[in-house]
Amino acid sequence: MPEHMTAASGDEFDQMARDAVYRAMFTRRDVRSHFLPTGLDDAVLARLLLAAHHAPSVGFMQPWNFIVIRDAARRADVRDLFLAAREQELPEIEVERQALYRKLKLEGICESALNICITCDRERSKNSPLGRWHNPEMDLYSTVCAVQNFWLAARAEGVGVGWVSIIEPQALKSLLSIPEHVTPIAYLCVGRVSEFASKPDLETHGWGRRLPLPDLIMSETFCGQGETPLKSAVAHLNTVAAAQANPADQCVAPAVPQREPPKEASALSFNSRNFDDASASRASQAGSGTWPAMVLK
Amino acid sequence: MPEHMTAASGDEFDQMARDAVYRAMFTRRDVRSHFLPTGLDDAVLARLLLAAHHAPSVGFMQPWNFIVIRDAARRADVRDLFLAAREQELPEIEVERQALYRKLKLEGICESALNICITCDRERSKNSPLGRWHNPEMDLYSTVCAVQNFWLAARAEGVGVGWVSIIEPQALKSLLSIPEHVTPIAYLCVGRVSEFASKPDLETHGWGRRLPLPDLIMSETFCGQGETPLKSAVAHLNTVAAAQANPADQCVAPAVPQREPPKEASALSFNSRNFDDASASRASQAGSGTWPAMVLK
Repeated sequence: MPEHMTAASGDEFDQMARDAVYRAMFTRRDVRSHFLPTGLDDAVLARLLLAAHHAPSVGFMQPWNFIVIRDAARRADVRDLFLAAREQELPEIEVERQALYRKLKLEGICESALNICITCDRERSKNSPLGRWHNPEMDLYSTVCAVQNFWLAARAEGVGVGWVSIIEPQALKSLLSIPEHVTPIAYLCVGRVSEFASKPDLETHGWGRRLPLPDLIMSETFCGQGETPLKSAVAHLNTVAAAQANPADQCVAPAVPQREPPKEASALSFNSRNFDDASASRASQAGSGTWPAMVLK
Repeated sequence: MPEHMTAASGDEFDQMARDAVYRAMFTRRDVRSHFLPTGLDDAVLARLLLAAHHAPSVGFMQPWNFIVIRDAARRADVRDLFLAAREQELPEIEVERQALYRKLKLEGICESALNICITCDRERSKNSPLGRWHNPEMDLYSTVCAVQNFWLAARAEGVGVGWVSIIEPQALKSLLSIPEHVTPIAYLCVGRVSEFASKPDLETHGWGRRLPLPDLIMSETFCGQGETPLKSAVAHLNTVAAAQANPADQCVAPAVPQREPPKEASALSFNSRNFDDASASRASQAGSGTWPAMVLK
């Protein structure tokens, strides 16, 4: 790597680059609809897979494999597994929500350009389990990180991804000839889409709402009080966003006085001068900075 | 969301934005060294947590909590747990690699600005387990997605993150007063760093090497042959990178004739004209396009 690419001497992300990373996260969706009947170029898919392959993995074991499923008949079989699983899951849902559950579209197995099953080979580094002796599930978690890399890269490429979890795993293993020591982690529907929804479908349909992030932050121990400046900083991000958005989208009560966003701020920019001013105190920083409404939906 | 932000009409990432997302993934590191003695602004940490909070979650359950640990004495206790766990794990490592294992630096618990334990509350949506009846581990996986969002956002902010998995989970739960129904997913060391290493530490020290991605791609079923154009496209990404990098970094044999990168390509750009030309065939696309050496290290 060239010397100038170290963090200390120029490998920083500028504001536009940081914004792009956050935008991929905030506009990523679990896509079940809006798949286009177009295919997906191998060149694009190759980049998504390379992104997945650069996920962290415990002991650098890289336990993942990627099964690409294009065949229509096989995908119809997978869809049948989903339909059966949905009927089995239905009685477990609260009675008053079962009608809504039935209405929700929860997969795009046959409509998407292709499907990908990302698996975890649990024996790939069995003789040298660095970092897995006390936490043997770390290889599964590593594979999930690969899924998330794939998903975010897809968002940046304009490719929709939906994770189908309503499926009986042993039936899926049988259908895809996955051996016993390999665990399917994610069955993904992947393809070009006409749009990305502005909010998660489950939020749009009233299944759930985004929890207030300050409530999820704890200090030193579980349920430990404290971290007030941090919680204020978090609340402020949402406050500024909510003031710019539809008030109905607001899920955190304003905890910090709102300030006018700077005129020169881009549509996707933090006010980095306020946020990153090293001379400001933690508490005063917590009350400054902007975040656009768009990215928080 | 403004109408112009739909995928169909302008919500695309331009090449610079896509490059930024990939750069975060390819230059992210599991950081154990190079932590600076400076603190971490709450405003920055708030953004990282908001990124984590926008991870996908099954049934939109958002099962995560974030315990921020700053106290030096508590962190020393966690470090003692790590040291004990490392001694317990050592005998499980292949004998010929135990000396190397001992030499590796595997955590930065006390040197980093702060620690964060990201947990999964397994009862948060127990009455309405959409998407978890057949795969009850989906809430754990959702939390891992939050960890990866945090990690990538941190990279974009110039903040190093290291995941400590060599730790006895029940001892950690006890130390942090985590209740029985909550699972600690990731214990993270977080802070400003002087540099991000150009390669994973475990690769630098000869513990492992990056596997050739084409070998990890399967077609239709596990170990299914096929997907030759896709594998060629993947190999070509590495081939072009390797040709620009130190040959010692090459891990995939050239499978596609190398082409000269276009003169106008940025240091972090794909040649999107070659990669995305819809008129080109899948096979010919597989052999075109560039990716810089830097991002593949």
